[in-house]
This record gives sequence, C-alpha cells and structure tokens, in this order.
Amino acid sequence: MKIGMKLVAGALLLAGLAAADEGMWLMNKPPARQLKRKYGFEATPAWLEHLQRSAVRFNNGGSGSFVSADGLVLTNQHVGADCVQKLGTREKDYIHLGFTAPSRAEEPRCADLELNVLNSIEDVTARVNSAVSAGMDATAAQKARRAAVNSIEKESLDRTGLRSDVVMLYNGGQYHLYRYKKYTDVRLVFTPELDITFFGGDPDNFEYPRYNLDITFFRVYENGVPAKIDHYLKWSRDGARDGDLVFIAGNPGRTDRQNTVAHLEFLRDFLEPRGLNGLRRLEVLLSVYSSRSIENARRAQEDLRMVQNSRKARLGALAGLQDPAVMDRKRAEEKALREAVEKSPELRRQYGDAWDQVAAAVASYRQIQPQYQLLELGTAFRSDLFSKARTLVRMAEETKKPNAERLREYSEAALESLKQDLFSEAPIYKDLETVKLADSLALLMETMGADDETVKKLLAEKSPRARAAELVNGTRLDDVSVRKALASGGASAIEASTDPMIAFAKLVDTPARALRKTYEERVDEPMRQGYAKLARARFAVYKDSVYPDATFTLRLGFGQVKGYEEDGRQVPWTTTLGGTFPHAADHQYREPFNLPKSWMDNKDRLNPKTPFNFVSTVDIIGGNSGSPVVNRAGEFVGIIFDMNLPSLVYRFAYTDVGARSVAVHSEGIIESLKTIYKTKALLQELGR
Amino acid sequence: MKIGMKLVAGALLLAGLAAADEGMWLMNKPPARQLKRKYGFEATPAWLEHLQRSAVRFNNGGSGSFVSADGLVLTNQHVGADCVQKLGTREKDYIHLGFTAPSRAEEPRCADLELNVLNSIEDVTARVNSAVSAGMDATAAQKARRAAVNSIEKESLDRTGLRSDVVMLYNGGQYHLYRYKKYTDVRLVFTPELDITFFGGDPDNFEYPRYNLDITFFRVYENGVPAKIDHYLKWSRDGARDGDLVFIAGNPGRTDRQNTVAHLEFLRDFLEPRGLNGLRRLEVLLSVYSSRSIENARRAQEDLRMVQNSRKARLGALAGLQDPAVMDRKRAEEKALREAVEKSPELRRQYGDAWDQVAAAVASYRQIQPQYQLLELGTAFRSDLFSKARTLVRMAEETKKPNAERLREYSEAALESLKQDLFSEAPIYKDLETVKLADSLALLMETMGADDETVKKLLAEKSPRARAAELVNGTRLDDVSVRKALASGGASAIEASTDPMIAFAKLVDTPARALRKTYEERVDEPMRQGYAKLARARFAVYKDSVYPDATFTLRLGFGQVKGYEEDGRQVPWTTTLGGTFPHAADHQYREPFNLPKSWMDNKDRLNPKTPFNFVSTVDIIGGNSGSPVVNRAGEFVGIIFDMNLPSLVYRFAYTDVGARSVAVHSEGIIESLKTIYKTKALLQELGR
Repeated sequence: MKIGMKLVAGALLLAGLAAADEGMWLMNKPPARQLKRKYGFEATPAWLEHLQRSAVRFNNGGSGSFVSADGLVLTNQHVGADCVQKLGTREKDYIHLGFTAPSRAEEPRCADLELNVLNSIEDVTARVNSAVSAGMDATAAQKARRAAVNSIEKESLDRTGLRSDVVMLYNGGQYHLYRYKKYTDVRLVFTPELDITFFGGDPDNFEYPRYNLDITFFRVYENGVPAKIDHYLKWSRDGARDGDLVFIAGNPGRTDRQNTVAHLEFLRDFLEPRGLNGLRRLEVLLSVYSSRSIENARRAQEDLRMVQNSRKARLGALAGLQDPAVMDRKRAEEKALREAVEKSPELRRQYGDAWDQVAAAVASYRQIQPQYQLLELGTAFRSDLFSKARTLVRMAEETKKPNAERLREYSEAALESLKQDLFSEAPIYKDLETVKLADSLALLMETMGADDETVKKLLAEKSPRARAAELVNGTRLDDVSVRKALASGGASAIEASTDPMIAFAKLVDTPARALRKTYEERVDEPMRQGYAKLARARFAVYKDSVYPDATFTLRLGFGQVKGYEEDGRQVPWTTTLGGTFPHAADHQYREPFNLPKSWMDNKDRLNPKTPFNFVSTVDIIGGNSGSPVVNRAGEFVGIIFDMNLPSLVYRFAYTDVGARSVAVHSEGIIESLKTIYKTKALLQELGR
Repeated sequence: MKIGMKLVAGALLLAGLAAADEGMWLMNKPPARQLKRKYGFEATPAWLEHLQRSAVRFNNGGSGSFVSADGLVLTNQHVGADCVQKLGTREKDYIHLGFTAPSRAEEPRCADLELNVLNSIEDVTARVNSAVSAGMDATAAQKARRAAVNSIEKESLDRTGLRSDVVMLYNGGQYHLYRYKKYTDVRLVFTPELDITFFGGDPDNFEYPRYNLDITFFRVYENGVPAKIDHYLKWSRDGARDGDLVFIAGNPGRTDRQNTVAHLEFLRDFLEPRGLNGLRRLEVLLSVYSSRSIENARRAQEDLRMVQNSRKARLGALAGLQDPAVMDRKRAEEKALREAVEKSPELRRQYGDAWDQVAAAVASYRQIQPQYQLLELGTAFRSDLFSKARTLVRMAEETKKPNAERLREYSEAALESLKQDLFSEAPIYKDLETVKLADSLALLMETMGADDETVKKLLAEKSPRARAAELVNGTRLDDVSVRKALASGGASAIEASTDPMIAFAKLVDTPARALRKTYEERVDEPMRQGYAKLARARFAVYKDSVYPDATFTLRLGFGQVKGYEEDGRQVPWTTTLGGTFPHAADHQYREPFNLPKSWMDNKDRLNPKTPFNFVSTVDIIGGNSGSPVVNRAGEFVGIIFDMNLPSLVYRFAYTDVGARSVAVHSEGIIESLKTIYKTKALLQELGR
C-alpha cells in the first residue's frame, strides 16, 4: 500500500483521457484505426482469427491460451489453483509442493474445470430488441427479452452443439451471440510451488517490481485423448522487449467506465464500502480458521487468496473514486455528452431522460440492496452445500417451465455447465462449511435485525452457530451420489427430501425469489434501458471510438512494453530471475518472501539476466489473468498475471501515467523450466 | 473458533443465574454472606486491606500486584507490552527477544506507564446528587453534576496529593471517590519472549487448554530509588490446587449486565456489529502493513494484537447476544424486576418509567452514533499525532475555564495523567500514522458520504490518502519539545500555530464538540438517570446481593479451581510445562506455535509435571488481565491472563457451565525462571 501514489495518478488522469493504448476491444470490432495511426500496424482478419482461436477462457474466472497442437493450455497458477487445490489432499498439497505429471498418461483430471474457446460472434441486437415493444412495462419487457435470449441460445445450441451465450454489451446497447467450443476434460500438466507462483504474497500482490512464476499448464482432452488444436500460439524466440507493441486476448471481467456520476456516487458511498466490509469480514474469518492448523490452512488457502485479492483490488478502485480528481473527470465527461445530447433535438428526444432513468434505478437498488445481496446473491449463506441445495431446489422448479420462461442460469443452454459444477467430485469440508455458514447467518441477523420475521424463520429460534452446525452436520449433500439422485428425481424428489439443507434452501427461496423479481423490475430493467440509451447516444456522438465495458468475454487489448516513473524514481520495464533472491533476502526469507527449495538449490545455475516479469500499457482488469501477450507476429511473448496499484482505478477509468499491467516473460518461463524444473517433454512440446 | 460451544453454554445459562461464584464485588462491599455460606470463609478487614493495597492498576488497561517489598510488580506480558514495545528498536525488539535487566541499575524506564494503587474509597453519592435539583433539564443536570465531581476531585487532590477519581457505580446509582497512590517511574525488570508469552497466538487466545508464560515484572521507583512497599503478596509454596477457593483483586474494564433488553437489542443489532466491522477493518489494515517488512511488523505488533484480541472478545460476546437462550434469560430477568416494581405503588412512582427512559436514550443514540463515533470518539482520525493535536487544542481551551466547567478529561485532577501521555517519549512512526489516518479518513468519507459538507471541509478537496500524507508529513508534533512548547504556550500558542495537524484538530473540534454536547444531553444524561433508577429499584427488590457493572476500578472476585466439560470431554483444571512441547509439535512448530530457543534448549531440564496454566470459576472480564490469584491465606498462587470462549458472554451474563478464567500457575512461573531464564536475583526477591 503505497501512499501518495493515487494522488499522482489522479491529478494526471484528465490528461490520460485520450490515452492511445486504452480499450478492451471486441474481436469483431477491433481498434483498427488506432493501431494503424499510432503503431502502423494492420490487424488482418487472419491474424485476428488466429489470436481468437488460440485464446482460452477459464470458466471459473480467468484467461489462458493454447501453446501446442496437443491441447496444451497455459494460464496463471492463480487461475488454475482451484483445480490444483481440489486435487490435493492433507498429505499431498500440490499448491505448496507444485506438481509435474510424470507422463501424459499420469495427468490428473480436474474435478469441475470448464474451458471455452470462442468460435463465432453474431450480432443479435435487432432480434432481442424486437421482442420488446414500446408499451411494455418493466416486467413484461424483462420477460420478453429473457424469452428471446433463451430462445436464441437454445436454437444455437441445438443447431451447432456449441455453448451459446447471448452477451449484453454496452450495458444493453447491443446483444451478441457468442458460440464456444467447450472442454470439460481438463488435466493438470505442470504447476510450480506456491512460494514462487505467489512469491511476495498479499504484500506484493498488485505491486511492481515483481518476481513471480505465476503459471500452470493444463491439457484439454476429447474422448479420452489429448485434443487436436489447429490454432495455438507459437513460442517467441526472444520474448517481449522494451518498447515493443504487444497485444493481449483475454476476458476482462467487469468494468464500470460507462457508469453515470449518480451511479458512481452510489458505488463510492454505498455499495463498495459495504462490499469491502464483507470481504474484510471473510478475510478475518478465513485467516482465523487457517491459523488453527496446517490442514485448515490448506483447506482455506484458495478462498483466502481470492478474498485478499478482491479486497486489495476493490480497495484500490474505491480509492480511485474517493479521489476528487477522478470524480471531476467523470463529471466533465458526463457534462460533455449531456450537452451534446441536449444540443440536438432528436438526440434529446431519444436519450435525454437516460441519466434520470439510471438515477431512479440506482435509488431503487439502494432500497433493496442489503436484503437482495444477503438472500438472493447468497451472502447470508456462504456454504457450498447451501449453493448446491439451492441449485437442486431451483433446477427442479425451473426445468418444469418452458425454456423461454426460466431464470437465465437454468436455461437449456446453461444446464450442462451448471451440472458440471453441481456434480463436481471436489471434497467439501464440513468444518469449514460450518464456520462460514455460522458467520454469514450472523451477518444476516446483524444486517436485517435479529427480530426480523424472515431472519427468525430462517434461524429457527437458534443461534447462528447452532443453526449452521445443525444444517451442515445433518445434510448429506456432500455426497455426489445424493446430489445426482435428487437432480434426476426432479421436483418430486425435492419435495420428498428430508435433507435439512434442502429444506433450508426451500425456506430461503420464497423471500429470495421475491427480491429477485423486485430487483429485475425496478433496478435491472430500467437501468438496462437507461444505459442502452446512453450507449446509443455515445455511438451517435463519438462514433466508433467506443468499446463496451468488460463482460468476461474475449477482448483485444494493445499497448507498449514500457517502464514508468514512481515517486520520482524510474521503474524499469522488466525484472530478472537474478533479482528474485535479493528480494527474498531483504525480507529475511520470511513467509511470504520465502523461496521454494528448488529455487534456492538451483540459484547459481539460473541465468540471472533472464527477464522474469515485465510491464506494459495494455488495458486490463480482473479476468484478464492468464491472457497471452503476443507480438506483431502473433507469437507468445508473455502471460498477464497482475496489474500495479495505480492501475486499480482501471475499473472506472484508464490512464497510462504510472499504471501498468504485469506479465511473466516468456524467457523467464523457459529458463526456469529448463534449469529448475527440468521438464524436458514440456519444453520440447513448446518447441524449446 | 469452536462451533456448538455457545449452544451448550446458552442452553444452561438459565440454570447458572444464581451461580454462587458470580460477581465483581466492591472492596468496600465484599460478598461476605456468599463467602461464608458456600466456603465458610471470613474476609476480615485486615485481609481485605492487605489485598487492596497489594493490587496495582495499570492505567493503560490492566491489573497487577506487588510481589516484593522493593516495588516489584507482576503483571501479564500483554499488559506491559506497550512499554516493552516502545523500549525496543529496529535492532533490539524486546517483545520478541524478551528482556532481563542485568542489575537494578540497568532497569530501563517506561516512556509513559502509570500505575495506581487504591488507597481509600469514600461514598460521595449524596454530595453529587444534591448538586442536581428536581427541576433541572438534562444540560443543567449534566453541568451541575460535572461541576460537583470536578470539585470533589480537585479538593481531594489538593488535600491529599493523591490521584482522586469520582467513580460512577451502578450506572449512576452511586458515586464513590477513589484515591490512588500513583507511580509514574516504572522500570522493566524481566519479560519473556513473545513466542512463550503468547504461544499459540490469536488461534489459542480465549481458548483452553493453554501453555503461556504471560508475565512481565516491573519495578516502581520513587525519587530515583526502588519504592518501599508495605503491602505485597507473599509467594505461595505450592500454588493453586484443584478444588481450592481462590480470590482475585483486579480491575474489570466493562460489563453490560444491568442493561435493559432494549439496550441489549441495540448492542446486538447496531452497535456491536458496527464496532466489529471497524475492528476487522483495522485488523486487515494492520496485517497488510505488517506483512510488508519485518520492521513494519515490529512497529504494528502491539496495535495488531490488541485489535485481534478485541475482535475475538467482542465476537464472542455478540455471539452470546445472538443466542436466543441468553436473550430469553435477559427478558425473564427484566420481567421479574419490572413486575416487582409495578406491584409496589411507591416503587412504581419512583422507578416505573426507568425502562422507557433508557429506551428513549438508546433511540437518540442510534441517531447520532455513527457521527459521534467518527468525530468525537475519533474513529475517523486514527493517528497518535491527531490525538496529541486534539489534546493540545482542547487543553488550551479547557484550562481557561474554571475547573468545575471543564470537560472531564481536562479537570485539574486529570491533567497530570493527561500530560504523562501527551509528553511521552515513545517513538511515533509516520509511515504507520499515514496508513492509519488515510484509512480512517476513507471510513469517514464512506460513512458520512463524500459529498457531506463536514467531510468535504475536513478532506479539503483531496483524496483520503493525499490528505493523510499532507497532514502527517507536515506536522512537527512527533517532536516532544514541539508539543511541550505548544502546551506551555497555551491558547495564544495554539492560535499562532501553523502546524497542519493543529489546524486540522481545530477544524474537527467544532462539529465534534457539538456532537459531544448532543450526546451528553440526549443520550448520556437520560440514560444515567434511567439506570440510576433501575439500580435503586434493584437495591429495593434484591437488597445487597447486587454488585455494580465493571468500571475499571478495583474489584474482588472469588471462585474455585476446577476443570469443566466440553463437547462431552472432561477438560482438566491444569496444564503442565511438559505439555507445551507436544502442543507445538502438533502444529509443526509453525508460527504462532513455535517456541523460543530458550525453551527448546532447556526442554529436558524442565520438570514436565509442574502446573503451567489453570482454570477457575472466578468472574472476570477484560481489564482483569494481570490480576493476582490468591489463596485463603492471601498468598500469590497465580496470575489471571485470559478467559475461555464460553466465558466471553461474561460481558452480559455470568455462568460457570463451561466458562472459566485462565491463569498462569505460580509454580509454572518459578520453574521457568529457575530452569530457563536463571534469574537468580529475581527468584531471591520472590523468596524462592
């Protein structure tokens, strides 16, 4: 946490507005003009298609890429860690120990990992919008749009067999149908020890300079054999160099750059502070649980790391909103667009009320947000067992309905992925479940009041701890066969079930569904309509210089490999393998600044000058983790794994002043695979 | 965090209502009847006086006792740690290393520690109450009472030279004047390494079985030589034994056992959840700061430990309130008293409206609490530099007024202790100050809204980080001589000061004082009046079986050395020195389950059967840390340092079902001093 940094970034953000390397561009609407003008680069359709098909989405929230014809996929360790953790046991903690499959035959399969490769994009805006007619109220509009979306997805799935998602872009300004080839047989090939993938831990996270080998290799299988891949990235001979133009293809998760000022103020003064309180609560809970024993620490480590990561990211983003300079810029931008709309009678007629519409939706959200968050988004029931119970209860009810009328996550097109998660063989630890559920039920009590009727009903005259213990100890949903039986038994099996967690999920469902309905009618739909208008107003005023906010779908980014200035010091574009050891020594090798034995043992054999991590001006956000960095030739030169503190404001605004994305250098990967891990077969497969 | 525990405790609390060992008794109103009846013990005036004068209050929030005629004081390491931490440097971290003064001449002096020994108690209820006449409104009553209290204290100080505090007991039912002999020259004699004083760290804190040598010896000096002490505790030959009747004399800080149900509901649903959010926020902040370097960790370690301790204690107490069984008991108690009052026309006339009066005050508090907490209690300005600035600003203003009209903490009687703290030579770390102030200014922004006028004025158009950096970097208040000059310069020096932190404290003072006034008029005064009535009603109905809620003044407790049952297992009354090592091994000696080198080296020399920690049914709460445990003969048999999880509900209600206080055994101390630390002179002074 560097103090004063945000001040510099904030003061200069205004200058950064037109910064040339900004943007998370659609693959079907690349920044051709910008690339041509600033870098003289022509992104040909073939170049774009190759990159698109080499890029892999990790459905659990990250990015990656194919790096061999035999289905080899490279991503970050922290993206793949969920699988690695679930493969581990009390005796063999692969997160800490690392793992190298001795041979292809011995690559272990992940419990519930799904990878997606984007096959095609189709603009379906007209069809979605035509379902909604002018006179419809919010409920009818919502229903009609959902029906249209579910039908488009179902038709596409039936016709192509591909995962088919209608993606809302520009906050409702456009709808595109994304078709993915899906891989669900994903196996672990190689992952280094946590002490080098996450060297420096939470203190170094979102910071630079860095020294992290944050990589994991998986392999996708089809019909029990390694999948044959046509489009994969060739490994560059040299890797990224200072000043290079580089590109990334990845899945940025969420930005809020198009938000109105009223909406940003709501985030700043209400939603984000509350969200952060929730994260801190969970962080303390998991830290305390972890501290009790080594096995506890293993069980909770991935949850804890995710929570700490979110806490730091969201705190940085909130600090951006709390900087008057950032808000002043946002106010100026809004004023400019609003004036342009007001000037044209036609634009004013069509879009003039958009800001007020969003503001009204925000006000409604403020009313219901705490309850909606607790009961429908499930913050009051932090338990995998509860999530599975809810899925079973809702699936039984939703699948009775025609596809077009279902909740989105139970549509025909979504069911397969849903079941992949529901029937995961990953172990569930009842002690951790009890601790989390007890705390979240206490949160429910604290937020809504212990004497609230819904709370009293859900707690059943017991303390949060007692209620959580009773539910977790009593349920049999930790057994996959029990879940499968309930799922295949449908509504009658759910009705007949005496499982206490199923009964609890039913109890929750009435108030939760009511809140969801209110949310969709009073918040989601009017907000979508307002933002759709704003998006169209932007198209009208700013033409094609507009990219949509991030949606965890494939985007193209570009930028330059480049150092920066911080507090008057010049920070170089790259670190080296040799720099790793002094960084550890500075902290007396104390956790999380300890290095794995493999690194200490091979210290003198490594080429110390090899680039390790490097920075560039590419525009990214959470979800981009694991994105391949490629050069003009489309060759692999690095892999994104982080961003530095000044770039955390990226959620709301881009700047290249001090803000940088952070990647592992391709040569750092090769040198450590050769010298430390001696993974001959893997290197051969990479052509090195 | 043991799940299910609270259930057992909760279910049986009702049975524990009349539990014989309950009570934090006034030294001038000891539980003579109870001791006689249950234990056949007669507490003679001489026995009581000896205990009272041997007991020492650590003014920074703990207890202790004299254990030699030469001013030797024993307390917990965690009570004395603030001094030890301030004596340490980057090179010599005595908290971790431990410390043994080589000779009396080399005992280092604490920067700002004040010890108090209770000399006399005088009931001044009549005089305080007579200052308030029937027709006065809240403001007038408050002012009159404060004037009476300030005058009583000033007169006593002038007449006796002793620290003189009027203590409000029974929430306003009585006022007693406490006179203390004060020691401000306190020097460090011996403290063990943190790894054994706090072995097991946060995970073992508030748990049992335990293996902690949580002790530190200080010596008080007068006129540069060790003080001569008439009353000190003789060290027992055997120490505590199973089944023994034992006593403690210490300073429990705060309980809320007499609270009305409406008040408890406010704590449960509003105040405690918010307080805990604040603690978690601080815990995460300090953890992140500490993780960045070893020196950072040293600087923040005592703050962090205090925060974690409060978090665990308050979470346990809140869990008690969230247990319907506890609240049902409270409702039943309130109903019983209310019915008794209603039955008597005289009682009803005098006290019948007390509950409603408290409820109204609680409702008023709810209105202003967030702002009051931030601006007046200072949660928005977590910075020692700010605290010192505020003290300087207010001291200049308050000392211009007649003593009777001042804010309580600036009365003549209080000034000396205030200056002891203000002029402390303890180092102030500007990096840590900046981090804490930036975060607390962000909290201010988040709670009151970034566009609130007061917030905007205090932030001065800057981000919280930028504003904090500017104030902390710009101030010179870290220099004691600057503080001394400003203090002696009085109002004109403050007015002329250009120090940015002084200017900031002035800016804060207008809204903060306004909130304090509102608080005193609408919350404090009516609540005090309501509770005073309730106290008198209890005296009328329950006679002398009533002890007051804790007030961080000297109290007598008693109970039995006794094991207990937990989840069906019998937990023995004591642990042994030998048990320490397997407990460390179970956690692979990983922090905080690592043992100091001195212990590992001397493992085989220790007598493994020596009792180490033990439990009893004595009724305690935070502030009792360091309280001596004595036997019937008044000999030292142990020192309180903790309570177990089921006893955290003690803040609201006593039970001896599963709940126990935890102490270090006197023989465990002797054996480790002899075998591990080889502190010959110290042992000789203890007569061993």
